[in-house]
Parts: sequence; structure tokens; C-alpha cells
Amino acid sequence: MLTYTPPIAEQRFVLQNIVKVDELSGHNVFADVTSDLVDAILEGAGQFAAGEFAPLNRVGDEVGSKWSPEGVTTPPGFKEAYGAYVEGGWGTLTGPTEYGGQGLPLSLSSVVMEDLGSANMAFSLIMMLSPAAVEALKHHGTEEQRRTWMPKLVTGEWNGTMNLTEPQAGSDVGALKTRAVPQGDGTYRIKGQKIFITFGEHDLTDNIVHLVLARTPDAPEGTRGISLFLVPKFRLNDDGTPGEFNDVRCVSIEHKMGIHASPTCVMSYGDRDDCVGWLVGEEQGGMRAMFTMMNNARLNVGLQGVSIAERATQAATRYARERVQSAKAGSASRESVRIIEHADVRRMLLRMKALTQAARALAYYAAGLTDRGQLGDADAQARVDLLTPLVKAYGTDVGVEVTSLGVQVHGGMGYIEETGAAQHYRDARISPIYEGTNGIQAADLVGRKLGLEGGAVLASLLSDMRAGAAGEAPLMALIEDCEAVAGHLATSSTDDRMAAAYPFLTLLSVAVCGWLMALQLRAAEREDGDSRFLAMKKAAARFYLDQVVPETRGLRAAAMAPAESLFGLDEEAFSA
Amino acid sequence: MLTYTPPIAEQRFVLQNIVKVDELSGHNVFADVTSDLVDAILEGAGQFAAGEFAPLNRVGDEVGSKWSPEGVTTPPGFKEAYGAYVEGGWGTLTGPTEYGGQGLPLSLSSVVMEDLGSANMAFSLIMMLSPAAVEALKHHGTEEQRRTWMPKLVTGEWNGTMNLTEPQAGSDVGALKTRAVPQGDGTYRIKGQKIFITFGEHDLTDNIVHLVLARTPDAPEGTRGISLFLVPKFRLNDDGTPGEFNDVRCVSIEHKMGIHASPTCVMSYGDRDDCVGWLVGEEQGGMRAMFTMMNNARLNVGLQGVSIAERATQAATRYARERVQSAKAGSASRESVRIIEHADVRRMLLRMKALTQAARALAYYAAGLTDRGQLGDADAQARVDLLTPLVKAYGTDVGVEVTSLGVQVHGGMGYIEETGAAQHYRDARISPIYEGTNGIQAADLVGRKLGLEGGAVLASLLSDMRAGAAGEAPLMALIEDCEAVAGHLATSSTDDRMAAAYPFLTLLSVAVCGWLMALQLRAAEREDGDSRFLAMKKAAARFYLDQVVPETRGLRAAAMAPAESLFGLDEEAFSA
Repeated sequence: MLTYTPPIAEQRFVLQNIVKVDELSGHNVFADVTSDLVDAILEGAGQFAAGEFAPLNRVGDEVGSKWSPEGVTTPPGFKEAYGAYVEGGWGTLTGPTEYGGQGLPLSLSSVVMEDLGSANMAFSLIMMLSPAAVEALKHHGTEEQRRTWMPKLVTGEWNGTMNLTEPQAGSDVGALKTRAVPQGDGTYRIKGQKIFITFGEHDLTDNIVHLVLARTPDAPEGTRGISLFLVPKFRLNDDGTPGEFNDVRCVSIEHKMGIHASPTCVMSYGDRDDCVGWLVGEEQGGMRAMFTMMNNARLNVGLQGVSIAERATQAATRYARERVQSAKAGSASRESVRIIEHADVRRMLLRMKALTQAARALAYYAAGLTDRGQLGDADAQARVDLLTPLVKAYGTDVGVEVTSLGVQVHGGMGYIEETGAAQHYRDARISPIYEGTNGIQAADLVGRKLGLEGGAVLASLLSDMRAGAAGEAPLMALIEDCEAVAGHLATSSTDDRMAAAYPFLTLLSVAVCGWLMALQLRAAEREDGDSRFLAMKKAAARFYLDQVVPETRGLRAAAMAPAESLFGLDEEAFSA
Repeated sequence: MLTYTPPIAEQRFVLQNIVKVDELSGHNVFADVTSDLVDAILEGAGQFAAGEFAPLNRVGDEVGSKWSPEGVTTPPGFKEAYGAYVEGGWGTLTGPTEYGGQGLPLSLSSVVMEDLGSANMAFSLIMMLSPAAVEALKHHGTEEQRRTWMPKLVTGEWNGTMNLTEPQAGSDVGALKTRAVPQGDGTYRIKGQKIFITFGEHDLTDNIVHLVLARTPDAPEGTRGISLFLVPKFRLNDDGTPGEFNDVRCVSIEHKMGIHASPTCVMSYGDRDDCVGWLVGEEQGGMRAMFTMMNNARLNVGLQGVSIAERATQAATRYARERVQSAKAGSASRESVRIIEHADVRRMLLRMKALTQAARALAYYAAGLTDRGQLGDADAQARVDLLTPLVKAYGTDVGVEVTSLGVQVHGGMGYIEETGAAQHYRDARISPIYEGTNGIQAADLVGRKLGLEGGAVLASLLSDMRAGAAGEAPLMALIEDCEAVAGHLATSSTDDRMAAAYPFLTLLSVAVCGWLMALQLRAAEREDGDSRFLAMKKAAARFYLDQVVPETRGLRAAAMAPAESLFGLDEEAFSA
């Protein structure tokens, strides 16, 4: 019952029609990306995720990772499955070829991350964060650091973590207090406490490479004074094997609503003043290096929304095709039918399909733009910068909505843990929070991204969207709404812009997704044959264009509302 | 931190301006309902819920009710708190005066149920279901049954349960198989298994009065053949005290996502062929009797949405007024502020306030109509019949949305169980499912309720709404949308009607709530002074009218979409 079937036809369709993966292989950097390779990865990753990771999803939730003074123990079976992941080389896809990676496009590894996240969202977090650490070292590390750390991070033999948050420094990273004191030998002594560190401690690898934001002595306040350090759990012996303990401890793990298999650690660095770190990048250049990691992570978190939505949709579909209950309303027969025949259940399922496909198209599209950015296409890079907050926020909002519909399709059984629908709902709820809350994403959109290149990045996107939306009246109207609201916000006060940020983010996300769904609809119409996959693609696209797009237009009023509507009353009134 | 403050000013305002509780006291049935009594109940119930029930909410979640072969044990402190509830007479409010009740209006007891649900949603379920059993006996029981069972149900010394569901009979009650065989002495032998029975077994009372739907021999198939039986856990001695065990067992309880303190029981009746039941109402008249219970329970479940939304809003507000993080965007000062000063946090809080107030107004309004129906006002009764699916579905949808916003306001801490925000989110998710899923409510609306009195009930409501919406352009437009869609659905095929049911239910709910918020806005403007409560009332009403109402208009396309959009593709395509 709790199985996962990789949506290979859908993934391939989006890679071909939205990412246009064939174009990538035209470039010598990605010359290996033949359609045979794409197929091999699609099928291999799907099989691996379904076979090795999906069966551990329930035990991961029920047993969870456990803390003891000796360390963190992952649930039964995780160690073996992680070993198979390393063994199969699944971690190496995007890693640089000089360090053992395959140098493949992010759009292709997105498929793998989607599969792993669908199969086991909590487990997949460790796989998601190591490539972010690789990116940070690739762009900001020294040659020696790369040689020393990257090969094992690329394979996943060691995992990487991101250490930003401290109790007083969450969204406000600049408030962090962890100290890094230079020792005169090129190393630093690290001391401080970090919270919410995903897989900060566990039993899956023989070393853990923490990337830690900290403040050097006399550094200025705020984000300007922050530097990034590489802080391993174990220092390395001369032969590169893990040696001396580096005074890095996991003090406790959090008791969370979901993703129980993923240990969320409170990490303590340098309790005994014996924690060594190495600077990555410039001193006081930590934020830049961290953004390299974060942008990658934000795209991946958006993809998690797709993953969990896909899994929930599959489960709900399976249940609705089996569960027999009630005769069809208005039918002459009083015979009970499977609930997929009831209109409202089918409405929920089609909505789940449409939202999941839309979020996937957006996430893959952004990954494909990143690949083009890597090839030197500055416009593509600028566009993905603009789209990153949309991928993260809308993708995760879709994850929450779709998993909630999944619970609802199951009826009373959806609330019982054994069906798994409840776990998806609980797991999904973290994704709008971490890697920058969705409110932070919305602020990033209206605060930094709308104004990129004086608004030209948005204008170019809207222009492409209009071209692709021809003939779709509600979508065209939504695009006009986006343009009007963006124009309004460009001249608004910061307060007004921030008040409108979230509704505007949703408006623009649905417009972009509507465009990508319209493109897919046309592509599906062009394809020969009338396979079931194509029939669903067309139906999901039509549902999105005919129902989700018009529904979203209702947000225009909120996106134009002034901050006065929020700040026009005394804060005390909220507690009255 | 995890406290609850009864929203007394708000509750009184809605009772006065929406329920118009003063009008009720003009009738001799409710002559006792003086404003002193209203105040005493508002304050007493609020204090009781906050003082006795709220402190048990966490332990209820963490420990939960536990099953053993000997029975079900509720969490520590529940027995004492339940005793205080009975002792304080809080169960007796609406009970008939002849049987120890106070005969007060449902609108007044709704305040008490709201308070109890906010304080401890899982616990409040036992308090919610006993009055439904009282209603069933009052309307359908014999005089002897009433004398025998009602006094202790009214006080809560014994609790009542509703037994509809069986594994194959959920939404389709007519598929149930539990048998009731007449013994020739006026009693029946009951045999069968029921699932999802809330508080079907526990340690809080010395008897449990199950109201059980079952099928007599030779009864026709489907709902027509169903009868209602009273089946106590213990038969009564001649002096009315609980005596011989009645062969009623709790076989197991479910492992649920939330409401852990509420045991959801699998009940087995007559394992040893020694379970006696008494017919309530006519043989094969069970559905009518059950609807008496269900309508009451549906209004109460809608109210649960209000309860949990209120609790989540209070928690989020408290957190947002304390948590310091980041400087305000665009501010000259780089000083970090409490997060309530950030626009997007304030947007979430105001949305939570507005949605909660709107759902409360709807729930109380429906309760007030029920009270008028009890006084013989047939129009009021017809209107509450129309509104019941809205109260249940929209109220619980609001509960889910608001508790989700509550998690989001807490940021990373919202996902950690210790803040309680996650519990509200998990608890709230049952309410769109039980007592008829929200999809069933939508089907009830378009299937039965729209056509009440040939559409005159809806027409009369829309006419009142239009009168109250004067000057509010988006609301007026939404009311027109409702009328247009209703007109369209009246002549649509059943399939089309069912496909549009849920979007239409939301459209109409928001229109009704918009109307009730507009009425409150006018009332607040008429009141002297500018207390913080009135300022928030006006701001919440404006937010609802200016943002929620326009947003909802976007659903019109979905409410007009034909079923072809759902059924136009092969079911197999959903699994492709």
C-alpha cells in the first residue's frame, strides 16, 4: 500500500519540453547528456528510490532518529540504504568531474532529488545538503580544501551541513554570535552553539563536514561581519582518514511534528576550546558563500514540495481507486462505486495532479536555467535568481495543500497514521519554514528580485509568458495583473511592498506555472498518440488554466492593498 | 506560554449583534436569558475552560488515552477536570428543564463549547456528543427512556456516543451491517462492530450510553432499513444505578495524527450474544433520529474550527509580540524588532483574526437560528438547515488554515512540538473529516439544501445579505456570483452540480460571512468609544471585506465548470 512509483513519463516530458534538456547536451560541458543517459538516470534513480528508500519511510517516521550522549542513531535500515546510495554513485551526479563527480546538469539531478524526496523526504535531506556544501567549496574554497574535502562529499561518504541558525539568529542571520578566533597557523578556534542543524550528527558516515557561519574578532555587526568556516567532526590524519575528534557535539535533537528520521540537531562547537575551523572564502565574506549554498538549497526545498505532493497524490489515487463507498449521486444504480467515481473526490485528485505538475515544471525549469547560467548565460542566471523565491515558496505551499487534499481523499483513514497520508501532511509542513520562511522568500522577491536590472529581468519573463499564453484568456489576464501589481509595487513604500509581498508572490508563481502548463498543453497536443499520460497532462493543464489561474486572480486586491490595512491599528488590539 | 484567554468581549459582541440574544429573552421559553446571565456564563465558562481544561491540553497530546484489555485510561488530570465539569453544571445548559437541564439557548451553550474546544479540543469531544444524545432522546425517545437516561446524560455523569460507522460503511451509512434482533420483551439483541467511536470507552463516567445504528431482521437495504438503539455499557439496576455488564467492548483505539486525548474506539457489540439494546423512535426510523443528532453535531464541529482557530491565533499573537528578530524592512534603524512589526507577520495575524471572527459569526448565527426554530420560527429553522453544511465545512476549513498560519508565524519553533502550534495544526485536521466530510457537506448543500422550498430559503437569505452588504462593492459582487452560480446549478445535471459543489460552498460561505462581518462593522462603528476590541473588530471586518471576499470571487470559474473537466478522462490516466 505504501509504495512509490517514479513518474518517469512525466519527468521525461518536463525535461524535454520545459527544460529542453537536448539543448544542454549541445554544449560541450554537458555533452554526455544523451537521451540514453537521461533514460538511464530516470529509470535507475526511480528504481533505486522506490526500492531502497520508500520502504523505510514508515519506520523512519515511527522510530525516528534517536539521540544519546554517544551520538545520534538513525532508524533501522537507514545505514544500509545510505550505503547503497553511496555505492550506486547517486551522490556524484552534479559534482565537479575533477573531484569524482559526473558534472551533470542540475536539472537532471533534480529528478533524482525528487525521487528520493518522494520515497523518503526525511532521509533525502542528507542527500540534499551535501551538494550545497560542494557548491560552497567549489566556488569559495581553496584548491587544497577542495582536494581534501570534496571527493568524499561528492560521493556522500561524508556529508555536509549548513550551520546558520542560533537561538537569537533565525531569519536574521546577522545576529549570530558564534566566534572564530585565528590561531596564527591559518586555522581558527570555533566556539558557539547552533540550532536546527539538519543531520548535524548521525551514524551514516564516518565524518561530517560542517559549514559554519561565525564571527571573527573585531568583525563589524550584522551580516557584513560574518565568515564561513569548514569545521569537520573529526580532523583528518595525514592519509586523509578521519582522526582526532574536533570538539563538535550534538547536545540534543528536536521533537518535531514530522520528518522524524531527520535529526534536527543542537550543535555545540568548542565546548572544550578545541574545535578547529578553516576559513572558506574571504574573511567577512561568509554571507556570499552562504548564499551560494542557500540558493541551491532553496531550489531543492521547492522540489521537496513537488516530491511530497507526488507521493501524496499517488497514495490518494491508489486509495480512491480501491475504496468502495456510496452509489454515485444521481445514478440510477444504487450500487456502491469506488470513490474515484464521485465528482468531488475526482476534483481533489485532479487538483492534486495539476498543482503537482505545475510545481514540478517550475522547479525543473529553474534548474534548467541554473544549468544555462553555469554555461555562461547571464540572462538565464538572472531569471533563476528571480524565480528562486517562487520555486521555494510556491513549491512548498503546493506540498502542504496537496498533502492536505491527500488526507481528505482518505476520509477517516487519512487521520489514522497507518495509511501514511498523515505522515505526508506532517512531513510537508516543514518545507514552507526552513531555508528561509516563505514570508522571507516573498520579501526577497519584492525587495531584491523585482528590481533586478531595473526590472528588465521581470519584464523579459513576462514577455515570454505572454507569448506562450496566447489564446488562454484567464492566464493572459493574470499576467496583466502581475505586470500591473509589479508596476504599482515598484513605486510603493517599503511597507506597502512588504504587506503585498506574499499575495504577489502567489500571483506571479501561478502565472509562471500557468505559462509552463500552457506550454506543456501545446506540446502534449503536438505529440502523436493518445496515451493515458498525455490525456492526463492535457486534463491537468486545462484544470490549472481553467480553475487554478482564475482562482488566483482573486488575490489581486490583496496584492494592491496598502500596509495601512495592517498597521492602521495599535498592536495591543491584537491581544484585545 | 500555552495559556488560553477566553475572548469574552468578542463573544458578547457577536451574541448581541449577530445572534441578537436580547430578542430570545423576549420569549417565555428563554425568559431567563438576562444580560446578567449571559455575562455570568461568558465569564464563568471562560474561566472554567482556561483554568481546568487548557492546562491539560499538552499532557492530553503527549500521553494520550491508552487502551488495555481492561479498558481505556484517559491522560492524567482528565478525570478530575471532568468531575469539575459535571460538578459545575456545565453540561446542563441546553438540557430540557424536566430532566435537570437549564433549557438555555444553543447560542449560549455555543460559547461554552467554543471555550472548551479552544482550551482542549480533544477533551471537549465528550462534552460535545452527550448533548447530541440528549437531543435524540428528547425528540425520539419514549417517556420512560427519557426518564431513565436523560438526567445523567444532561449532567454528564454518563456520556453519550454516536455509533454510525463500520469498516465498509463510512459516508455510506446505509451499508452498515450491525444486527438488532427483537427478543419479544421489547428489547433487542445487538451484534456487530463499529469503528471511529469517539469516547466509546474511557474512565471518566460510570456508564456510557451508546446510540447505535443497526439493522433489524428483514429490514430493507440501505438507509431505509436502519433503526436506532440505545445500548448502555452497563444495564441498570432497579434503582437506576449501573449494574450488569452489557457485552459492549472496546477492542482497540486508533493511532491518530492528533486529538490524542480523545479515544477513537473500535467497539464490539454482543461478542457473547449478550448485548441488549432498546429501540429509539420507530423501527426503520433510525436515519431520522440520527440526523437529529448529526445536525447538532455538525454545528458543533464547525464551532470546533472556531475554537482551534482562536487558540492558534492567541498563541501566534503572543509569540509575535515577544519574539525579536530582524530590523523592520526599509527602516532607518537597524535595531531588531518584535516580529509583529514585520508586515507579513502582521498580515498573517490579521488574516487569522478575520477568518476566526468570520467563522465564529457564522457558527453563532446558525445556533441563534436553531434557537428561533425551537421557538417555532419555521423560516429560521429552514435557514439553519441551509447553513449547516456551511458552518461545518467552512468553519473547519478556517480551523485548518488558521492553525497552519499559526505554525508559520512561529517559524522554526512552530514545527517543534513544545510550542503547541504543531498540536493545534494536527488537532484541527480531523474536523474537515468527521461528522460528514466537507465533501459530503458540499454535496448536501447542492443536493438537498439549495432546493429547499423551491429555492426560496436561499433567495430569502441572499435578499437579507444584499440589504446588509450595501456600500460594499466586492461583497455585493460576490453575492451576485452566488446567485448566478446557484441559478446555474439549479438547472445543471447532478454530475455538474457535484463537480461544482465544493467551490460553490466556499463562495457562499464567504459571502454569508462577509455579510455578517459587514453587519459587525456597522455595529462597531455605531458603538461609542474606541476600545481596542472595537478597533480590531473594524480592522478584521475590513480585512475580510477587502481581501478575503475579493480573493474568493476567483472561485466562480470553478463553481461554473462542468463535470466534463473531471470525467473527460479515463480513470486509468490518474495512475499513468
